[in-house]
Amino acid sequence: MANFASDNTAPVHPKVMQALIDANSGNVPAYGHDPITEKLQETVRMTFGAPQARAFPVFNGSACNGLALARMIRPYESILAHRQSHINNDECGLPEFFTGGKIIGLEGDHAKLTIASIGDLIETTLGHAPHTSRPKVISLTQSTELGTVYALDELNALTAFAKAHGLYVHMDGARLANAVASLGCAPADVVAGVDILSFGGTKNGAMLAEAAIILNPDLIEDFAYIHKRAGQLPSKARYVSAQLQALLDNDLWLDLGRHANAMASALREGLIDRAGVGLLHPVEANELFLTLPKATADRLFARGHRFYNWPAEGPDAYRLVTSFATSEDDVKIFLDDC
Amino acid sequence: MANFASDNTAPVHPKVMQALIDANSGNVPAYGHDPITEKLQETVRMTFGAPQARAFPVFNGSACNGLALARMIRPYESILAHRQSHINNDECGLPEFFTGGKIIGLEGDHAKLTIASIGDLIETTLGHAPHTSRPKVISLTQSTELGTVYALDELNALTAFAKAHGLYVHMDGARLANAVASLGCAPADVVAGVDILSFGGTKNGAMLAEAAIILNPDLIEDFAYIHKRAGQLPSKARYVSAQLQALLDNDLWLDLGRHANAMASALREGLIDRAGVGLLHPVEANELFLTLPKATADRLFARGHRFYNWPAEGPDAYRLVTSFATSEDDVKIFLDDC
Amino acid sequence: MANFASDNTAPVHPKVMQALIDANSGNVPAYGHDPITEKLQETVRMTFGAPQARAFPVFNGSACNGLALARMIRPYESILAHRQSHINNDECGLPEFFTGGKIIGLEGDHAKLTIASIGDLIETTLGHAPHTSRPKVISLTQSTELGTVYALDELNALTAFAKAHGLYVHMDGARLANAVASLGCAPADVVAGVDILSFGGTKNGAMLAEAAIILNPDLIEDFAYIHKRAGQLPSKARYVSAQLQALLDNDLWLDLGRHANAMASALREGLIDRAGVGLLHPVEANELFLTLPKATADRLFARGHRFYNWPAEGPDAYRLVTSFATSEDDVKIFLDDC
Amino acid sequence: MANFASDNTAPVHPKVMQALIDANSGNVPAYGHDPITEKLQETVRMTFGAPQARAFPVFNGSACNGLALARMIRPYESILAHRQSHINNDECGLPEFFTGGKIIGLEGDHAKLTIASIGDLIETTLGHAPHTSRPKVISLTQSTELGTVYALDELNALTAFAKAHGLYVHMDGARLANAVASLGCAPADVVAGVDILSFGGTKNGAMLAEAAIILNPDLIEDFAYIHKRAGQLPSKARYVSAQLQALLDNDLWLDLGRHANAMASALREGLIDRAGVGLLHPVEANELFLTLPKATADRLFARGHRFYNWPAEGPDAYRLVTSFATSEDDVKIFLDDC
Repeated sequence: MANFASDNTAPVHPKVMQALIDANSGNVPAYGHDPITEKLQETVRMTFGAPQARAFPVFNGSACNGLALARMIRPYESILAHRQSHINNDECGLPEFFTGGKIIGLEGDHAKLTIASIGDLIETTLGHAPHTSRPKVISLTQSTELGTVYALDELNALTAFAKAHGLYVHMDGARLANAVASLGCAPADVVAGVDILSFGGTKNGAMLAEAAIILNPDLIEDFAYIHKRAGQLPSKARYVSAQLQALLDNDLWLDLGRHANAMASALREGLIDRAGVGLLHPVEANELFLTLPKATADRLFARGHRFYNWPAEGPDAYRLVTSFATSEDDVKIFLDDC
Repeated sequence: MANFASDNTAPVHPKVMQALIDANSGNVPAYGHDPITEKLQETVRMTFGAPQARAFPVFNGSACNGLALARMIRPYESILAHRQSHINNDECGLPEFFTGGKIIGLEGDHAKLTIASIGDLIETTLGHAPHTSRPKVISLTQSTELGTVYALDELNALTAFAKAHGLYVHMDGARLANAVASLGCAPADVVAGVDILSFGGTKNGAMLAEAAIILNPDLIEDFAYIHKRAGQLPSKARYVSAQLQALLDNDLWLDLGRHANAMASALREGLIDRAGVGLLHPVEANELFLTLPKATADRLFARGHRFYNWPAEGPDAYRLVTSFATSEDDVKIFLDDC
Repeated sequence: MANFASDNTAPVHPKVMQALIDANSGNVPAYGHDPITEKLQETVRMTFGAPQARAFPVFNGSACNGLALARMIRPYESILAHRQSHINNDECGLPEFFTGGKIIGLEGDHAKLTIASIGDLIETTLGHAPHTSRPKVISLTQSTELGTVYALDELNALTAFAKAHGLYVHMDGARLANAVASLGCAPADVVAGVDILSFGGTKNGAMLAEAAIILNPDLIEDFAYIHKRAGQLPSKARYVSAQLQALLDNDLWLDLGRHANAMASALREGLIDRAGVGLLHPVEANELFLTLPKATADRLFARGHRFYNWPAEGPDAYRLVTSFATSEDDVKIFLDDC
Repeated sequence: MANFASDNTAPVHPKVMQALIDANSGNVPAYGHDPITEKLQETVRMTFGAPQARAFPVFNGSACNGLALARMIRPYESILAHRQSHINNDECGLPEFFTGGKIIGLEGDHAKLTIASIGDLIETTLGHAPHTSRPKVISLTQSTELGTVYALDELNALTAFAKAHGLYVHMDGARLANAVASLGCAPADVVAGVDILSFGGTKNGAMLAEAAIILNPDLIEDFAYIHKRAGQLPSKARYVSAQLQALLDNDLWLDLGRHANAMASALREGLIDRAGVGLLHPVEANELFLTLPKATADRLFARGHRFYNWPAEGPDAYRLVTSFATSEDDVKIFLDDC
């Protein structure tokens, strides 16, 4: 039976587990002053072509986004994000808690922000100071909450617009590997113009490891305080850093992202022409949003396949998520049962 | 060279690492709905003789305290804690952040709260409502920040006082194993009258694993929201729970605490009669606070031993912390170099 | 030249000023323990037919809403309000600051919430706990941000729905007088089913005086702490209470609301049939939202009339607000210049 | 019967009331864009010899302190204040709420901070980053919470120390008039080196009026947002500004402060030599803290005099506060009844 419920139902990739075992010897300084966390800095800088970047390992993606945003705004400022973004809907108010500020949920097809919607918002807001929270950061999710991927030219246009308007750019990269694999570009290309990247590991083979990667060196100052005060500074940081290092070594993270994407494409291929199946969004990463005939969905659930009904996309909508651990057999079994 | 800098410079205990390896197979539901987290509930209930308790796995001790306190107070209420407690001094304001409330730092010998100091505070506060934050919870650290341990009768008196005054009791058990091992009592005895326990794993052989153990069942409601909103709900929760389960299995946690305590006692024995050495607090758990002749300290540092100067206890004060991983050799080598 | 910029550009009504003068003698206890604030309690209870109600005088309408909402939700809960409501757009994040929670902005014609939009939101939210802030209160603005008024049957349906779903009801009554005057009902009718009312004085002839009127007696407990902690407990409370008392005496507040409404109607009558004028929303209280030919608007501004362009309603949209101080001459002069 | 309970039990000074009456005509722009608030800027700059200062009128002294501090610190920073200061004890956690930061309560005779206590704190804190909130501002209360006054050389030493250590200086001037009157200096002298002054009006003859006076022009930026978001931006700001203007005109505020001080001195003179009376702190402004024989206190209460028992200063301690409205008769009557 196949599990397409989420990419965080998957186990830990063997190379990540091996890295944890390898890290487990002797005393090292706590709180990130260990050799593994030091080495991670170099790896991150190389990976993203950002010689002044600094990575802060954290436990959790929700928190990673919150920390990044807390560094970028003051409580009277706002975050411009897609209405359907994870930070707006799925973190129980964590970004508002960590920042004190407000998320403005904007519209846009396939969960992508557009310059038009941002521009309108800024227009109506700025004349209204100080009665309206001041826009300060654009938060982009790459790949998006609906399994689509911003093209590089879309990203470049958005980051250029942000710079022109004095806005920071945050990228929620919980599924960045899937986006980079999908685009076939260099990691540096996808973060050009981004000030802080939430780099996701947990959904892509790690046990529990994310990193706030500060690409804009002006934002490194004081981040350590924000990190600590929110309970996201690991005392035994080596064990978080080791997971991230294992993913970045030899581009394992991209191999895993590519595999997950391929499994999503295979599902798409197998489903697209069936009666009653409708694709709700392009499948550009590792997620499918589609309508299924109720009888089909019921049969799949009854046979033990796991995935979610997705009412936010309509009563007959469902979501399937693949991961590094999805096998061709999983896909085949599922399609056979459809 | 010995490392007495802190118990979180130590590696992960082999049994904890093995538990992680064992947990690493197949897809399981995320966010704590997995079999390992389910089983942990039973183990915790048995360990603490609390059939209605519920354990919420979290990443980090600072956060664990913050979550517990956030469940117990409203933002206009206060937390009564020792002036030298970790929550008051060493968490960069996290407890205030998570709760919105205020910590009132009280005095007391050897970092222990007394009924007298709490009573005085309540007396002067209550007539002054609503101008003063209302006291709502007593937070006890067991073992304390200065390596001492509350005796059971001290605990019973404090929890009885709390109940009589409508106050909750929180126990910061980052080093609970050391306290229980020191007292030689049942775990249930040490948490009698406690409403929420911050159960520490990371300082006692885990990789990164703590649990907010809700002993007062009235406080379980809504805790899941607090847990999530603060970025402490692990998506792959099985890997946090497995660490805690490994520690609780066959009382491994107490064995490790007992060992660390024994190493601290051995250090104390070897140091106590030396010229210029003065013990600042009774050594009842795994920490020593003492004065050393500057020449001795300098020599030890020069030879590569690691421990901290501790200016809060005076200019010549030092702290030594032992852990499960401290060996008799570590102690011997250190004493030889003294 | 007429000033239709806002009802808070107006001065203080003479009877309110006289009440302040009358209140100004002798020492009285501070912080609301004075005879004027005591008497206000009785007046509020009579006015709203709520024998257990309690009124807390505050300085400011934004704060009044924030305090009310802070009493009703915990930080992991949400407030359901119209997307165009004042609390969502015009308070620089104050409600989120005071509550820690999240505002969910819902759609609805003419700035009115509907059961349908609320029901949809609850549906998609509840299955997603604890990842989504839990809906806990419906906040209604009466009269609305766009100058419309909820009919009593609309209110009754919404409050019944709220009770059925365990939600509190907050009413932002910054312009309640206009709504009650418009409906021609008893004040008690308009707050039936409301848990806390933000009662507005400042926009209706007061100097600076609002009151959080707790109609649901369960919510009185601890409100004093919220009141104090937010800097909204007046030390010389008599001077805030005296303003509110003056408004409530002999229904002055309703007379003033009626007058402002009549002036808005007169503007509407004088404008409705002109070429290029389009009414954007029904004029049911003291605000008009309309499109004007640019030449007309420019001429009016050039002649010194004051009112706002209102881009949120479109590029040619304008807002006119009348108040107790608007005279028939103001209307005539303005219409003559159109 | 005399009322020495507090200076906020007093009424409004006639000149302040007259200013409100004078302000009450016509429409003016809201939110501080009115001529009275404009004029106040000039008056404040002249009064304090600060040509770049800007005054933000607010409703309430607790909030004024909170706003000032919120402008100066980030949530991971701390405020160094006297343990017995108003911001630490009497605002139900408002400063922590508004700032997100932590107050560190320091010791010092007669409620005055000393360089020694601040220096010690900084010493032990700085090496401990990011585990301890970073000290960022010294908050001085002038006159102090115990009726004493910092001499100019004490102030100069503290502000110089602050500058040398990169700390801002906040002055809680709820009773600044009493301090300036006591020192007989120019207002500019007492705020030399201060970054933001909380200027108090309410305790000194106003109805409800304080101002956050930003003396350091770097801190003006963004203050408007903090002001608004906390519910302290008066929509009809002219009525707050008019009160402050009335106090500053012809140094009325200093006359009132001088009078209150004189009444406190007269009380001191009349009490000092009586049996059983002990002065707890020097009487340098308008407050006396003293011990009284219980029989005397009981007799005074029985005869209707109002003042507070002050348990924080000991079981037999009492506080007497004089104000602009205290008459020589009040003093005489009280002393006669002693």
